[in-house]
Amino acid sequence: MKRRDFLTGAVTGAVVAAGATYAATSNRAPAPIEPGTPDDPGTAPAVSSGLREWKMVTTWPKNFPGAGTAAQELADNITAMSEGRLVVKLFAAGEVVPAFESFDAVREGTAECAHAAPYYWVAKNKSIPFFCAVPGGLSVIEHNAWIMYGGGQELWDEMYGEFGVRGFLSGNTGTQMGGWFQREINSLDDFKGLKIRIPGLAAEVLNRLGATAVNMPAGEIMPALQSGVIDAAEWVGPWVDLTMGFYKVAKNYYGPGFHEGSTANELLVNEQTWQSLPSDLQAIVRTACHEANMKVPAEYFARSSDALATLVNEHGVTLKTFPDEVYAEAYRISEEVNAETANEGDLNRRIYESWSKFRKHAMDYQPLSDFGFIQNRRRAIAS
Amino acid sequence: MKRRDFLTGAVTGAVVAAGATYAATSNRAPAPIEPGTPDDPGTAPAVSSGLREWKMVTTWPKNFPGAGTAAQELADNITAMSEGRLVVKLFAAGEVVPAFESFDAVREGTAECAHAAPYYWVAKNKSIPFFCAVPGGLSVIEHNAWIMYGGGQELWDEMYGEFGVRGFLSGNTGTQMGGWFQREINSLDDFKGLKIRIPGLAAEVLNRLGATAVNMPAGEIMPALQSGVIDAAEWVGPWVDLTMGFYKVAKNYYGPGFHEGSTANELLVNEQTWQSLPSDLQAIVRTACHEANMKVPAEYFARSSDALATLVNEHGVTLKTFPDEVYAEAYRISEEVNAETANEGDLNRRIYESWSKFRKHAMDYQPLSDFGFIQNRRRAIAS
Repeated sequence: MKRRDFLTGAVTGAVVAAGATYAATSNRAPAPIEPGTPDDPGTAPAVSSGLREWKMVTTWPKNFPGAGTAAQELADNITAMSEGRLVVKLFAAGEVVPAFESFDAVREGTAECAHAAPYYWVAKNKSIPFFCAVPGGLSVIEHNAWIMYGGGQELWDEMYGEFGVRGFLSGNTGTQMGGWFQREINSLDDFKGLKIRIPGLAAEVLNRLGATAVNMPAGEIMPALQSGVIDAAEWVGPWVDLTMGFYKVAKNYYGPGFHEGSTANELLVNEQTWQSLPSDLQAIVRTACHEANMKVPAEYFARSSDALATLVNEHGVTLKTFPDEVYAEAYRISEEVNAETANEGDLNRRIYESWSKFRKHAMDYQPLSDFGFIQNRRRAIAS
Repeated sequence: MKRRDFLTGAVTGAVVAAGATYAATSNRAPAPIEPGTPDDPGTAPAVSSGLREWKMVTTWPKNFPGAGTAAQELADNITAMSEGRLVVKLFAAGEVVPAFESFDAVREGTAECAHAAPYYWVAKNKSIPFFCAVPGGLSVIEHNAWIMYGGGQELWDEMYGEFGVRGFLSGNTGTQMGGWFQREINSLDDFKGLKIRIPGLAAEVLNRLGATAVNMPAGEIMPALQSGVIDAAEWVGPWVDLTMGFYKVAKNYYGPGFHEGSTANELLVNEQTWQSLPSDLQAIVRTACHEANMKVPAEYFARSSDALATLVNEHGVTLKTFPDEVYAEAYRISEEVNAETANEGDLNRRIYESWSKFRKHAMDYQPLSDFGFIQNRRRAIAS
């Protein structure tokens, strides 16, 4: 499909969205759904009879394993639970807007919602990555605990409120690998002059190590690595890195990373559109996002623990760990970079302090929780 | 309320459930909801107009922090998302049936669903604890990964199908502590003759260590510990153990446990009732359960990491770790007990083999995942 067609589609969608507020009081007795009706451009009255259609733009390529397929499941589940009173249609990166214009598309109402990783918006505000992943940050359960029960969601709402949008946890990759490197990393010096794809605040850490960090969406990484535009790239972990085919161009696979203990994905929703939803549809959207936030890290973990063997045994990939001095220095700089965000303003300071206090408690508790259990199991049972 | 009243209530509920199948095709245009209608025993036509009411019995006391409050949120969320087309009413342990009769209540249709921990039903089949927690088992993410993407749900469905019920993940405590002990545990010998509350297959491990394991529901543990009926008890972890008040009668708090790397809670649903639901309500129930399975472990983690400091600083609790020989022997026996379940029958063997293979992959992957990340973070950052 041509870009012109998508733009036309976008405008049609925006008109539907503008009418959505009228439907807020009439949703309790939805008319029976005629298959295909929401797609028919001639059905303007659909909105006033309680039917809604949302465009979900994404930062992922079409049918992209992991984040893309999870976003599609999320869209389908909202449609199913609402019996079609809220139809969510997914658009891959570039179909309505380019990947990294998704935030502005939702802000401006071109799309009602977007599926993305919050740290892609670090240029909007340096503290946004705390709602996604920061170097030396939180594991999946720790991140969920901070967002849901540690004050994180309230701070996220306040931050995104400044842009007229709102975010919900809706997926997490789990701990990410350190990435694929053309050349071995044997010392800190090996980062000097290295061109590496890495997003968020971790990019600044790599820059301070002497590398040149660039951010690029999923669809651009493999060509860049292949052509030598970059020397190294981190994406996620064994499962989706295998499907990306990185092993074909770089054989040194480093992990675990220091930079993304877990990486949350979000459903970003236009605030006005959100406020126009009746409470049952709000509950449906929020709950569907939170289900994705349980299923997605489980899928990454299950498929990555399988893919690891495939990468090593079938594709000759060498698994490597960064030298101790690299981890030590990367964590040290990460602490600096994270702390510096607090100087950006009052809200930034409150975000950093809340996150920082939470991480301290989490680190104190881990020896009695996941970490302690897994450590004892490793000692006692040969895997 | 007297038990007789609850029995009457139960029979009324069963009649409603029996009529539910008639409504399956008429749910698409629900009548407006009159507040209080589902509660009125005179509204038999409610079911045929697409409204349903489910009783959710639970194994938890009234308003019980953690599992009980989470079950209430789950019930309320299903009601909210369905706009009252499916009203779920929660009953605490003992209100309709005693805690440990919840499984049979759902099986027999006395209640449409139950919120519980699957290992309470170990007497029904020794392999049921694999869907909940077995000693030396899986962490939260590992368990979710096995159930959702490793074949676990299919095996669970097959097992529960034999009883005419079905289970959904709907909460998890995270890693549990080893428990509260009146006397110190300095060697394996200290388990001899010890009376301890512990459920599931771990009970057999404790028995083989020379202790006497007893199972009892949440509401009976504190009185038993107080009166000396038991010498030790494990419940969950810092947050809910603090609310239970165990620190008042036992000062030795051991952790982490070997026995519950994570403990899944379930929504148990009568299969016939489930089949009578239209697909949108099925999606709503399933998704609400899975959301709880994300939120609950996050809540336990957040509140436990706070409660730990309270227990130690305000209540003089001493945190202790079992001696190495205890962990080594407990894990060794756990492997035996888990493996023995495979001899119970064909399905039992397939459950053990699937779980066992999954755990091996998970253990191989952990150094590159949660475990590896948290370990590096501990080395690099002073908490």
